Amino acid sequence: MFYHIKELQYDAKPSCPDPLYAKKLQEVLGGQYGEITVMMQYLFQGFNSRAEPKYRDLLFDIGTEEIAHVEMLATLIARLLDNAPVKQQEEAAEDPAIEAILGGMNPQHAIVSGLGALPTDSAGYPWNAKYTIASGNLLADFRANLNAESQGRLQVVRLYEIAEDPGVKDTLSFLIARDRAHQNQWKEAIYELENRENDIAVPTTFPSELEKQEVAYDFYNFSRGEESATGPWAQGIAPDGKGQFRYFSNPPAYGPPAFLIPAPLYIHDTLPMSKM
Amino acid sequence: MFYHIKELQYDAKPSCPDPLYAKKLQEVLGGQYGEITVMMQYLFQGFNSRAEPKYRDLLFDIGTEEIAHVEMLATLIARLLDNAPVKQQEEAAEDPAIEAILGGMNPQHAIVSGLGALPTDSAGYPWNAKYTIASGNLLADFRANLNAESQGRLQVVRLYEIAEDPGVKDTLSFLIARDRAHQNQWKEAIYELENRENDIAVPTTFPSELEKQEVAYDFYNFSRGEESATGPWAQGIAPDGKGQFRYFSNPPAYGPPAFLIPAPLYIHDTLPMSKM
Amino acid sequence: MFYHIKELQYDAKPSCPDPLYAKKLQEVLGGQYGEITVMMQYLFQGFNSRAEPKYRDLLFDIGTEEIAHVEMLATLIARLLDNAPVKQQEEAAEDPAIEAILGGMNPQHAIVSGLGALPTDSAGYPWNAKYTIASGNLLADFRANLNAESQGRLQVVRLYEIAEDPGVKDTLSFLIARDRAHQNQWKEAIYELENRENDIAVPTTFPSELEKQEVAYDFYNFSRGEESATGPWAQGIAPDGKGQFRYFSNPPAYGPPAFLIPAPLYIHDTLPMSKM
Amino acid sequence: MFYHIKELQYDAKPSCPDPLYAKKLQEVLGGQYGEITVMMQYLFQGFNSRAEPKYRDLLFDIGTEEIAHVEMLATLIARLLDNAPVKQQEEAAEDPAIEAILGGMNPQHAIVSGLGALPTDSAGYPWNAKYTIASGNLLADFRANLNAESQGRLQVVRLYEIAEDPGVKDTLSFLIARDRAHQNQWKEAIYELENRENDIAVPTTFPSELEKQEVAYDFYNFSRGEESATGPWAQGIAPDGKGQFRYFSNPPAYGPPAFLIPAPLYIHDTLPMSKM
Amino acid sequence: MFYHIKELQYDAKPSCPDPLYAKKLQEVLGGQYGEITVMMQYLFQGFNSRAEPKYRDLLFDIGTEEIAHVEMLATLIARLLDNAPVKQQEEAAEDPAIEAILGGMNPQHAIVSGLGALPTDSAGYPWNAKYTIASGNLLADFRANLNAESQGRLQVVRLYEIAEDPGVKDTLSFLIARDRAHQNQWKEAIYELENRENDIAVPTTFPSELEKQEVAYDFYNFSRGEESATGPWAQGIAPDGKGQFRYFSNPPAYGPPAFLIPAPLYIHDTLPMSKM
Amino acid sequence: MFYHIKELQYDAKPSCPDPLYAKKLQEVLGGQYGEITVMMQYLFQGFNSRAEPKYRDLLFDIGTEEIAHVEMLATLIARLLDNAPVKQQEEAAEDPAIEAILGGMNPQHAIVSGLGALPTDSAGYPWNAKYTIASGNLLADFRANLNAESQGRLQVVRLYEIAEDPGVKDTLSFLIARDRAHQNQWKEAIYELENRENDIAVPTTFPSELEKQEVAYDFYNFSRGEESATGPWAQGIAPDGKGQFRYFSNPPAYGPPAFLIPAPLYIHDTLPMSKM
Repeated sequence: MFYHIKELQYDAKPSCPDPLYAKKLQEVLGGQYGEITVMMQYLFQGFNSRAEPKYRDLLFDIGTEEIAHVEMLATLIARLLDNAPVKQQEEAAEDPAIEAILGGMNPQHAIVSGLGALPTDSAGYPWNAKYTIASGNLLADFRANLNAESQGRLQVVRLYEIAEDPGVKDTLSFLIARDRAHQNQWKEAIYELENRENDIAVPTTFPSELEKQEVAYDFYNFSRGEESATGPWAQGIAPDGKGQFRYFSNPPAYGPPAFLIPAPLYIHDTLPMSKM
Repeated sequence: MFYHIKELQYDAKPSCPDPLYAKKLQEVLGGQYGEITVMMQYLFQGFNSRAEPKYRDLLFDIGTEEIAHVEMLATLIARLLDNAPVKQQEEAAEDPAIEAILGGMNPQHAIVSGLGALPTDSAGYPWNAKYTIASGNLLADFRANLNAESQGRLQVVRLYEIAEDPGVKDTLSFLIARDRAHQNQWKEAIYELENRENDIAVPTTFPSELEKQEVAYDFYNFSRGEESATGPWAQGIAPDGKGQFRYFSNPPAYGPPAFLIPAPLYIHDTLPMSKM
Repeated sequence: MFYHIKELQYDAKPSCPDPLYAKKLQEVLGGQYGEITVMMQYLFQGFNSRAEPKYRDLLFDIGTEEIAHVEMLATLIARLLDNAPVKQQEEAAEDPAIEAILGGMNPQHAIVSGLGALPTDSAGYPWNAKYTIASGNLLADFRANLNAESQGRLQVVRLYEIAEDPGVKDTLSFLIARDRAHQNQWKEAIYELENRENDIAVPTTFPSELEKQEVAYDFYNFSRGEESATGPWAQGIAPDGKGQFRYFSNPPAYGPPAFLIPAPLYIHDTLPMSKM
Repeated sequence: MFYHIKELQYDAKPSCPDPLYAKKLQEVLGGQYGEITVMMQYLFQGFNSRAEPKYRDLLFDIGTEEIAHVEMLATLIARLLDNAPVKQQEEAAEDPAIEAILGGMNPQHAIVSGLGALPTDSAGYPWNAKYTIASGNLLADFRANLNAESQGRLQVVRLYEIAEDPGVKDTLSFLIARDRAHQNQWKEAIYELENRENDIAVPTTFPSELEKQEVAYDFYNFSRGEESATGPWAQGIAPDGKGQFRYFSNPPAYGPPAFLIPAPLYIHDTLPMSKM
Repeated sequence: MFYHIKELQYDAKPSCPDPLYAKKLQEVLGGQYGEITVMMQYLFQGFNSRAEPKYRDLLFDIGTEEIAHVEMLATLIARLLDNAPVKQQEEAAEDPAIEAILGGMNPQHAIVSGLGALPTDSAGYPWNAKYTIASGNLLADFRANLNAESQGRLQVVRLYEIAEDPGVKDTLSFLIARDRAHQNQWKEAIYELENRENDIAVPTTFPSELEKQEVAYDFYNFSRGEESATGPWAQGIAPDGKGQFRYFSNPPAYGPPAFLIPAPLYIHDTLPMSKM
Repeated sequence: MFYHIKELQYDAKPSCPDPLYAKKLQEVLGGQYGEITVMMQYLFQGFNSRAEPKYRDLLFDIGTEEIAHVEMLATLIARLLDNAPVKQQEEAAEDPAIEAILGGMNPQHAIVSGLGALPTDSAGYPWNAKYTIASGNLLADFRANLNAESQGRLQVVRLYEIAEDPGVKDTLSFLIARDRAHQNQWKEAIYELENRENDIAVPTTFPSELEKQEVAYDFYNFSRGEESATGPWAQGIAPDGKGQFRYFSNPPAYGPPAFLIPAPLYIHDTLPMSKM
C-alpha cells in the first residue's frame, strides 16, 4: 500500500515559462525510457517478485522513488506551461518569440491538458505498457533496468544540453545524479547474480547439453568486410567462461532451402497451375 | 545492400503440425523481445552508427543474422499450421483433440494469414518499432542489446519447456545457443567500452561537477522494511569506482510542497471561488 | 513523494490457482477501465491541478489508494498463476481440465511474465495512457472519474459473477465496495461544482452569446421512427435550467452542399479532365 | 441502414486557409474526445443495445448526427489546407509568415493526405477504438457520453479561443451549442435512470449484501494533509442515499504483507540461494 | 449529412448463439480489412475529395453502404452472443461443449461489452485509423479500395468455410456478393483513370525526365536462384507501355559504402578513441 | 538467409544538413507506406509463400531490395541531421533560420536517436506491423503490393516537390524510378493471375452458387444525387465478365428492423422497466 506527501523529492521550478521546452521535456516523462516506464517496470517487477525479500524490497524502494520522479517532471512541465501564449494577438504578431511559441508548442498542451503535463512523449505518442518488462528472472530484469537507466540518463543529459533555464538545469542535475545511483545499483545487483549463478547467459538454469553447443560461441561475418574480426567478441574466452569465440568469415547455411506445402482448398489461396 | 539465399540458417521442421503451439511461438517472432525486434534494433543501430568501423560492422553482422532468424521462425510457424483443422466437421466433433484446436488456435492464422506466420506476438498484438532503440551511444545500446538477448533467450527456453515436438526443440536449441553467443558478444563489447570510458554510468561524457553529486550514491528506503539494506547496492564502493553507497532508512523530501498557479481564463478551467 | 508498505490494502488470496480466471482478471488490472487507468488518471489530475487545495488533496487521496488496488490485483493474478501447468505431460493428456488450461490460458503469462501479472487487458492488449484524461477542468474530469468508476465497477461485478473461488470473490467484494465509495465521492464533488458554477454544460465559463443558441436545445430525429421523442431529453426544461428542449422530426441541413477546390499541381492528385 | 445527402449540417467555411490551425483542429476530429469518438461510441451503443426502443432510438439519433459532425470538421480542415504553401520558394524565404507555415504545419497534411483531413489528432496520433465504450449498461454508458461531450466541448471552446477566422469561429459556435444540447440530453437520461433504479452506483443490480459494505462509504486520507476532509465527499449522507461518508485520517492496511511462492523450475526464474 | 433507418440492409440472424464464432467474426468487423476500415476509408476519401462530382458521389454511395455493413455485422455478433454461458455451473461442468465456450470465447465479450460487438478484431486488437488511406490521388486510392475489398472478401470467404450456421452463412453470402460488386466497381474506376491518364504508375503527373529512368524497368535478382526470371515482370514491354523490363542476375550497388560523421559532443555518443 | 554489403544501392548524400526536411522524410522510411512497410510485407509474403517457386522468388527479390531502400533512407536522414543545431545559443538567437530549426525539428532526433533515423513516420508515430499483409492469396497480396507502391511513390514525389537539395532530389529520383518499376512488376503479375484464374474477384475459388448472386452487380445510390450513375461502374458488363452492373436510385433495405433480446441478469445491464 502507498502513502503520498505533498512535498516534491526535489524542487522543480523553472525561472520562467517555456512551452517549447515543455514539449521536449515530455520525452523523459512519458517516452519509451521516461520516468513512467521505470516506475511501472520496477513496481510490476516488485508485485510479481517470487524471489528473496531483499530483491523484492530493492524493487519497491526504487520503484516508489520513481513515482516521485514522475511527479517532479509533471510539475516542472506544468510550470513551463504557465500562462503560455496560445493565441495570435495583436502584440504577438509583432513579437517573433511569441510567433515561434505559437507554431512550436505541442497543441495538446493547450487543447487537451489545459497547460498540464501529458502522459506522452515529446512527439505526442502516448505511454504504453510494452515499454516495460517483468519477466520474473532477476538477472534478465536487472539488465532491463540497467538499460532503462542508461537510455534514460542519456536523454536527460541531452535535454540538459538543450536547456538554458537554471531552474530546469537544477532539477535535471538531480535526476542525472539519481540515474547514476540507479545505474550503479542495478549493476551491483547484476554482478551479485552473475557470480552466484556462475554464468552470464540468461537463463542460467537451462541444461547446456540441450543447447546446440556447436554454435554457441561462433561469430558470423554476415556483413562483407572483416572490421568486426578485431573486436574482443570474435576471439578469446567468452565472458561466460565456458567457451572460446570463433570467427567465421564465410558463415554457411546449416539448413536446406525452405519451402512450404500448398494450402488446403478451404483457405482459398491462389490455386497452383496443376490444380486449375 | 542485402542479398538473400533460399537456404535457412538452420532447419525448421516440426515432426507434425500443431496450431496451438504455433500461436505460442509467435511470441519470439513478433513479440516485444522476438526476432523482429533484434533484427530491426541492430540494423537501425548500424544504419545510424557514427562510431568506428568495427562497431558498425559488428552491428551489421549480427543484425543480418537476425533477419535469418525471423525467416526460420516464420517457416517453423507456417509448417506448424500445415493443414490446420479450422472447421467443426462430423469427425472432428468426436475428437477432443481437434475440438481443442478449434477453440485454442489463433483465428487470424486461418482468416488473415491463411496458415502463415503473423508479424505479431502470441496474443495477436502487432510488432511495433517502440520495441527498439538506437540512441547512438554504444554503451547504452549494447546494454539494450544484452537485455534483448537475455529476455529473448529466456522466452525461447520457456517455449522449449512447453514443446514436445523434437523438430521444434531442435530448432529452438539452435536459437538458444545463438542467444548465448550474442549475450557473450554484447557483454564483451560492453566490457571494452566500460574500460575504455573508465565509467559505467551512461553517458560517461557528462561533466561530473554538473550533476548533483550529493545524491549520486544514495539508496533510499521508500518501501518500509529494511531487507534491501543487506544488498551490495546499499553499501561499499559503487561499481563506477567514483563513490560510496549510502543507505537512508528515512529518505527525506528535498523539495517544497508542489503547487501550481491558476490557469488563465482562456483555458476554461474550473474558476476558483474567489473569481466567481 | 510516495512511500510504500508491504501490507496489501486488502487480502488477495485465492483458494487455489486458476490460470484461466487469471487471464480474465487482467481486464480490471490493465484494461481500458482497469486500476492502472484510475491510478494514472487521478495522479495526473493531481500533478496538473491548478485548483484549490481540497480538490488537489482529494485527487491524491484517491489516486494513491488506486496504486494499492493495482498492487492487490497484480498479487491476486500472480497467485492464480501459481504453478500453472504449461506443458502437455502424460498425466495431463488424460485430464480434460488440464487440457483446457493448456489451450485457454494467456500464453504470455508463461512465456513473458513467468507466472506474473501483465500490464495488459484480458485480450493481451497493453495499457496505454490514452485511457486517461486530465484536462484541468474539474467538472469535466470528475465526470471522467465517475464514468471510469462506473465502467470499472460494472466489469468487476461481471467478473464476480464468473468467479467461483471464495478468496477471489472476497477480494472483488472489497473492490466493488470501494468503487461504490468512489462513485459516491465523485458524484458529490460533481454536485458541488455544478451548483457553484450554476450550469451543467462544461465549460461553464464560455460566454453564452458566442454559442449558436438557436440550436443549443434541439433534439434531431436522425434515425427514422420517433421512439426517442418520448424521453425527457426531447421536451421540457433542460437540466442547465437555461432553455427548453425542442424535438425536430425532420431535422434540416443548415449548410450548403460541401465541395472542395482542386488541389494544386505539386500535390499530384488525379488531374481533372479539363486540365489534361 | 444509412443515407447521405450532400449538404453539410452547418457551414464550414473559413475566410482564408490556415494550415497551422488545421493541424490544431485535428484534435476535435480524430482525437481522444473528437467527433469520430462520439460517432463510433453512440453507434456501437446503438448496434449493441438490448434496451427499450426509446433508448436505442436516442443513441441512433445522436450517433447519426455525429457522422455529420465528422463531415463538417473534415471539410473545414480540408479548406484550411487549400493551396497550403509546402515549399520554400524564393518569395517564401522573405516572408516570415510562410516560413512559420513551412515549419509548423503537419507534414502529413501535405505528404499523406494531399491537403485533406486525417483521422488523427493534433499530434498525428491515429484514432483508435479504445477511445470508445459500449458496455450495454445504459447508466454507465450515458455517463461515458456525458463525459465525452464535456471533454469535447471544452476542447472546442479552447480551439475557439485560439481561432481568429470568423468562419472557423462560426462553425465552432455551432458545435459548442450542439455539445451543450447533448450534455443536457445525456444528463436528463442519466437522471431518469438513477431515479428509476433508485441508486447511483453502477451496476445497481448487484446484491448489496455481497459487497464489503464496511468500506463502501469510507474516505481514506492517503495523501498527507487533511484539506480533502472539508469536502462533501468526506462527510454526510452519500448521494446513493444508502450510507454515510466516514473520513479516515490514517487509513489502515486490511491485508497482510504480500508475498509469492517461488516459481516452478520450468519457468527459469532466478534460483533461490537454497536451491543452488 | 446522414440519416438512419432501423432496417438492416440484409438480415443477420443466426439459428443459434455461438460465442466462439462471434469471436472469429470480429475480424471482418473491426480488423485490418473489416467493415469499419472500408467505411472510414471511403467516407474520408469522400470528405477530402477535390475531384469531379461523379467520383465524390461514388465514394459516398459505397461509403454509406459500408456503415450498414458495420451495423449488420455488429448485430450478427451480438446475436451470436445471446445468453452466452460465461460461468462454470454444475450442469456446465459435465458438458464439454459449454466447457469449450468458457475457455474459448473472448472474455471482453462478457466483461467489457456485455454480450455486444466490439470495435476490435478477432484477437481483441482495437481498430485504428492507420488501416485507412485517403491520399487525394484517385488512382492510388481506388487501388487501396480494390485491395481492401480483395482482402476483405477473402477473409469473409474463409469465415464462411468455418461457419456451420445457415443464418450466418446466409448473411456472409450477401457480403461476399457485395464485395464482388465493389471489386468490380473499383476495378472499373481504375481502368477509366489508367486510360485517361495514359499511364499506370501513380502519380502519372511527375515529369519522367526527373526520375532516374535508367533503373525504371529493371528487375534485380536479390534472392539467389533465377526462378523469377521466367515471369512476365522480368521481360517484355512493361504495362505502362513506356519501357521494356530488364533482368539483372547480379544486381550491382550503385552507391558507395555508407558512413556517417561522428556526432557533436552535445549528443553524448560514445567518444571515438581519438578523442579520449 | 541474408548477406549484407557496405555499399548503398544508390547514393544518399545531401548537399547540406536540413533537420526540418529530415523530419518530413521520415514519412517514407517509417510511415504507413514507407520502405519498412514494403520490406516487411514482401518478406513475410515470401516466408509464408505456399505458391510456385517463381512467385516466391519474385517476393524475395523485391523484398530484399527494399531492405536496401530502408538503409538508403536511414542514411539520408542521418546525414540531414549532421550537427543539427539543437540549442539556443547567443548567435542562434539572432539567426531566424536557426530559430526555425529549433522549433520545427523532431525533438526525438536529438533526444532519442542522437541525430539518427527513427523507425517512425513524420509525426513521430512508430512503425507497426498492421501496415502489412501477407494473406497467402497471391492476387490479393499483389494488389496490396501495387497499392503500397502507388501510395509510396505518391509520397516520395510529394517530398521531391518539397525538397530543394540536389543530393536529396537525386536519391528520391532513384526511388521514384524503382517505384515505377515495382508498380509495373506487380501489375504484370496481377494480369497473369487474373487471366489464369479467369476472374477478378478475390478469391476466385469460392463457388458462385454460394454467393447471393442477385446483388453481386448492383450499384446502390446511398448518397442523394445521381452523379455516380454516369460512371462505368454503374452500367455495362462488369470487369469479371460474369454479370452486368445495375444502378439503383433508391436502394431498399432487404432486412427487417434490427433488435436484440435483453441481456441475462448476470451481465448487469440496465434492467428493463418490466423487470423492476
